[in-house]
Amino acid sequence: MTPSELEQYLFEKIPLSRAMQVAAIEVSEQCVRLRAPLAPNVNHRATVFGGSASTLAILSAWSLLHVRLQGRLPGASIVIQRHSMTYERPMTGEFAALAALASPEQWPRFLRALERWGKARICVNSMLEYRGEQAGLFNGEFVAFARE
Amino acid sequence: MTPSELEQYLFEKIPLSRAMQVAAIEVSEQCVRLRAPLAPNVNHRATVFGGSASTLAILSAWSLLHVRLQGRLPGASIVIQRHSMTYERPMTGEFAALAALASPEQWPRFLRALERWGKARICVNSMLEYRGEQAGLFNGEFVAFARE
Repeated sequence: MTPSELEQYLFEKIPLSRAMQVAAIEVSEQCVRLRAPLAPNVNHRATVFGGSASTLAILSAWSLLHVRLQGRLPGASIVIQRHSMTYERPMTGEFAALAALASPEQWPRFLRALERWGKARICVNSMLEYRGEQAGLFNGEFVAFARE
Repeated sequence: MTPSELEQYLFEKIPLSRAMQVAAIEVSEQCVRLRAPLAPNVNHRATVFGGSASTLAILSAWSLLHVRLQGRLPGASIVIQRHSMTYERPMTGEFAALAALASPEQWPRFLRALERWGKARICVNSMLEYRGEQAGLFNGEFVAFARE
């Protein structure tokens, strides 16, 4: 899946990603990096609104699982169960979220459970980036279903 | 502050709230309830997107502090520091977030700290509601600054 294909998928299925003007920058099995401009995501302090920051993190984490499962179980569906988020410093311009598996070594077990039981859980981290530095951290637990 | 005044404030300062078609339903010092329709907040499963759900919760929690501080320290500014969120069941239509202080008895101490030191922290809960039942739970820690 190319960045442009992921972007189109998000725009089509999750209209909030379009409102936020999300762009997919990097898409691989190792990581997904999404970016968004300040203007549609601004708050009362002229910084990035916390809701936009956590939404970009959720989108990047969800996209990573979506991309990884596309090749293995294309019918699989992924839903967020819980997440936590820290906001470390204000972002006053374009920002990004870089998602990677929290424990890549758990992927094979996750896949086996998904194929065997039709349902499995896995955690994804996403780092908020502003001007090349970490500006926040997301950790989310997702559940995947083998069929919609 | 009336629901309509809060709504206008959010629309003006946080454009994402407009994209989500957020409506303010209840606004008091005890609680703030915000509502949003499914269409602009839908995901690939035709349920409410997790990013929209957590954003509505953040907006409701932030609004509660904004409303409470308006009467006391109108120049105060509120920023989210961290939050956690659980998603308990899918929502397939209009949803709401009802925010209240996590520990109302801490409010006087919070205000004193804010007036004395110009900075103080407080936690707010927000319950996601779908068809009158709890569908998720948000807990967020906010820091307030006495002046912008």
